[in-house]
Amino acid sequence: MPEHPELTIQGWGAPTRPRDATVAPGREGDDGTLVFAPFPPLAEVLPKAARRHLARELGWTPRATPPVAVREIRLAPSRLAEECRLRLVELLGEEHVRTDRDSRLRHAGGRSYLDLLRRREGDASDAPDAVVTPGSTGEAAALLGLCSEMGVVVVPYGGGTSVVGGLSGSDADDRPSISVDLGRMAEVTALDVPSSLVTVGPGMRGPALEEHLGEHRLTLGHLPQSWEFATLGGYAATRSAGQASTGLGRFDDLVAGLTLATPTGVLELGHPPASAAGPDLLGLALGSEGALGIITELRLRVRPRTRAGRYEGWSFRSWAAGLAGLQRLARHDLLPDVVRLSDPDETRANLLMSGGAGARALRGSLRARRHGAGCLLVVGWEGVPHLVRARAKAAASVLRDGGAVRVGRRVGESWRRHRFSAPYLRDSLMDAGLLVETLETAATWTALPGVYDAVRGALREALGSRGRTPLVLSHVSHGYATGASLYVTVLADRDDDLPIQQWLTAKRAATDALVAAGGTLTHHHAVGADHRPWLEREVGPLGVEVLRAVKQRLDPRGVCNPGVLLPD
Amino acid sequence: MPEHPELTIQGWGAPTRPRDATVAPGREGDDGTLVFAPFPPLAEVLPKAARRHLARELGWTPRATPPVAVREIRLAPSRLAEECRLRLVELLGEEHVRTDRDSRLRHAGGRSYLDLLRRREGDASDAPDAVVTPGSTGEAAALLGLCSEMGVVVVPYGGGTSVVGGLSGSDADDRPSISVDLGRMAEVTALDVPSSLVTVGPGMRGPALEEHLGEHRLTLGHLPQSWEFATLGGYAATRSAGQASTGLGRFDDLVAGLTLATPTGVLELGHPPASAAGPDLLGLALGSEGALGIITELRLRVRPRTRAGRYEGWSFRSWAAGLAGLQRLARHDLLPDVVRLSDPDETRANLLMSGGAGARALRGSLRARRHGAGCLLVVGWEGVPHLVRARAKAAASVLRDGGAVRVGRRVGESWRRHRFSAPYLRDSLMDAGLLVETLETAATWTALPGVYDAVRGALREALGSRGRTPLVLSHVSHGYATGASLYVTVLADRDDDLPIQQWLTAKRAATDALVAAGGTLTHHHAVGADHRPWLEREVGPLGVEVLRAVKQRLDPRGVCNPGVLLPD
Repeated sequence: MPEHPELTIQGWGAPTRPRDATVAPGREGDDGTLVFAPFPPLAEVLPKAARRHLARELGWTPRATPPVAVREIRLAPSRLAEECRLRLVELLGEEHVRTDRDSRLRHAGGRSYLDLLRRREGDASDAPDAVVTPGSTGEAAALLGLCSEMGVVVVPYGGGTSVVGGLSGSDADDRPSISVDLGRMAEVTALDVPSSLVTVGPGMRGPALEEHLGEHRLTLGHLPQSWEFATLGGYAATRSAGQASTGLGRFDDLVAGLTLATPTGVLELGHPPASAAGPDLLGLALGSEGALGIITELRLRVRPRTRAGRYEGWSFRSWAAGLAGLQRLARHDLLPDVVRLSDPDETRANLLMSGGAGARALRGSLRARRHGAGCLLVVGWEGVPHLVRARAKAAASVLRDGGAVRVGRRVGESWRRHRFSAPYLRDSLMDAGLLVETLETAATWTALPGVYDAVRGALREALGSRGRTPLVLSHVSHGYATGASLYVTVLADRDDDLPIQQWLTAKRAATDALVAAGGTLTHHHAVGADHRPWLEREVGPLGVEVLRAVKQRLDPRGVCNPGVLLPD
Repeated sequence: MPEHPELTIQGWGAPTRPRDATVAPGREGDDGTLVFAPFPPLAEVLPKAARRHLARELGWTPRATPPVAVREIRLAPSRLAEECRLRLVELLGEEHVRTDRDSRLRHAGGRSYLDLLRRREGDASDAPDAVVTPGSTGEAAALLGLCSEMGVVVVPYGGGTSVVGGLSGSDADDRPSISVDLGRMAEVTALDVPSSLVTVGPGMRGPALEEHLGEHRLTLGHLPQSWEFATLGGYAATRSAGQASTGLGRFDDLVAGLTLATPTGVLELGHPPASAAGPDLLGLALGSEGALGIITELRLRVRPRTRAGRYEGWSFRSWAAGLAGLQRLARHDLLPDVVRLSDPDETRANLLMSGGAGARALRGSLRARRHGAGCLLVVGWEGVPHLVRARAKAAASVLRDGGAVRVGRRVGESWRRHRFSAPYLRDSLMDAGLLVETLETAATWTALPGVYDAVRGALREALGSRGRTPLVLSHVSHGYATGASLYVTVLADRDDDLPIQQWLTAKRAATDALVAAGGTLTHHHAVGADHRPWLEREVGPLGVEVLRAVKQRLDPRGVCNPGVLLPD
């Protein structure tokens, strides 16, 4: 099959990270206040064919539904008592305790569709009462002890990219809350090259770490879609997975150790390279979402910069054939480092979005091979050149046996180039009256087809009422020997009267369906506020009680991010 | 370098598993009572050159120090109240509640040098007061509830191969104890081939599982030295590592899920393939050593039977060069599936043990290349043939760059053939007046040389008094990107008057030294009774408190294996 030089392959509005200039975390204008940068109109960011496709599929009429101006966002006065504020100032210094409107707005909520909806409507009721910036593990530990004593809720803040309400700050007792921004703890503090270990502060972002490591010809290689904004501490607290996690491992696998400051003391966890000294306490801190304390330092496993990277596109005639092909690769430990299999709906949408002759030519040649309603697969390998070649060859043999057709490296390289760009679409889509959100899960290979059907069915039913038809685009984003993740983007005509209720209903239906079909509650977005009603179904009532016992020991007054993870 | 057809490469008396016919777990004679099979004399199992080497190095005079006869082992009457026994019988049936001498002796202690010393001296004070055999998760859960109510200590029993006092059954309150033998829960209950998952009972042994999986052309591939005897539940409870764990992963990595019965309920943990739904509770059950409850079912990741296996021997001129070579492989993700680098002392001992022309020729050719005081490395790969070739080629290039010389496949194949035979030597060595024990740790590549020096120094000093010189043989047994494990075998002239004190002193010195140098308390033998005084140094006082909080929630009366893991 010929190569397609002009093709670009992108996802659709996966809301996993903030745009630089959106409502929150916001950007300072020349006058020092928060401003909106205007989002580009949809016509600028989406080809005409794609807009037509959306209008036709969704029954959606493009319309202007802009957000309120920042000055119109409602923000209640800070509830933090002056006496408490002074004690925080005493600990951290005046410049590291902020209660001004801009600081509070910038740390309000995360980046879920619901967060954006609320902010667009002018609602910042979840904004913290203050923002503080500790500079060390010692300060963070002292801060937690002080807040526990004062009854002040603590919400750690990294990149603000949570899409599951991880920053909600809600508290059953309605205590004041502070956002603990870790931006001052964002340095590399040690590098042990022979042991492939780097020690970093939790507030460091991926690009800064990669820049530092690049000077030593090393890389971390963890590349979630939120990479430009999310922090390393946030990855650990939420059990993140990156785009190359199929090969390099989930973020969990990259953490050799960490420091967790809690209201009752500091834990130093993890003993690289491996230990059998009792249960894994490091695994309790990973995924703790701030509910046990604040991660104040991380030891991460790094790798030499790769000497060869190879990305390819393949096509399967059907979703079932695609899943079967990946499953065969998985069983034989032949999965590439990057694996992304789009279902027919996502494949069609991607090809329509990619304007230009390349995409047209690809669509034509796929139709000619009876892959017109098929599934595109992007695969990628990184590493020592001759091992990349050997692995790619072994995988190609399995893929061909499964009926796949190679569509060339340009498709793979195009995906790689545009891997972080999809979320930038979201605000433009929302400005034009669309609902756009994502959700994700994972299941064994045996359960995965049922989970896929269940989620799609639930979303279509929940969002398909009143003449609307949602578009549900799915892909496998991470493969394992035992199963795979499923990432779902949903677009629908927004209910302008009850937009939040519209999504809550759909989300509840989809989550009920995926859990009932054997999917996990979340594969890499974490629990947050949004998923916690389902945690008991995931780990059982006794599992929740075990987590409560740990929290009770470390955070007896329950000040650590009480709105997430554990059900009320 | 020429191949050496007659060479056999073995370890030295690594006491990680029971001999079929030794004191415990014992074997029934024709009359239904426990008997000793006589151990072969040392002259039969060790070449003359090796015996001379030992005598010369250790200052040891071979002498007969046989164990007492089984009938002379002292066993106190069962302390289990008849009322309690009857309630157990009511739950499990008469045939599943044993208080006879043979059953109790067979479940007394594990396989550490201290366990063997005590049994050889006729001391079975750590024998359980009864042995019970539940047949299901439900029965195990009910049993735990009942024992919690009655104040009876519960010690899970798999293969009885603990080398760290994991079966000690000791209890600060001196309550009666029962051994819960999981031998009735030893079946494959489900096999999901597409998802590479098998569901098994905890009492199943590796060989039985491999036989079952072999019918489906699958394998688990977990091969610790205790493989012939240890159980799958035991691997999980102790965080075992197998000989191919460098490539296939530790046992932790093979467990996709498990069921943990506790006194307060049953936990179903793990959600394959992966989840971000909060902290990892499965990791709390792994390594829990019976202190939180009983593992009653496991879901394990299996693989297709390999189509190619390749094992090779290499030689380095020095230990430092060998470690540097492995570290380079590790950094570039080029470690073979099996990696075993012997230090000069172990290399020399191995070559002396391997009688015959092959070993002599190898010694000669190593001397000729100035590798006479060098280090042998055994490496092995399993998998798809052309990937095995590609990986072996890439590794060979790195090894050669590091000054290594290939000594041929026979050395590797010899190791593979004899991989389980070393422990059979141990009883013969002990019969002849020797101390023989092993210990292990792991550290980052940067810390490993210091840990090696510290352990050797401590053992030599502790055991070298009074004219004795111990032989300390070490090897790296598992490699990781961030570091490696270190496995140490120690042989010395036994102190016939105070043999237990002799080893306790040495063990304490070695453990203090390795922990101080940055090693982990244990890489794959677990904590047990022997290591628990050091647990706080490993995870900190607050880490111990977190484990206590979990135990308190699941086992409020503290009946679950109270003698292990957590310090008093």
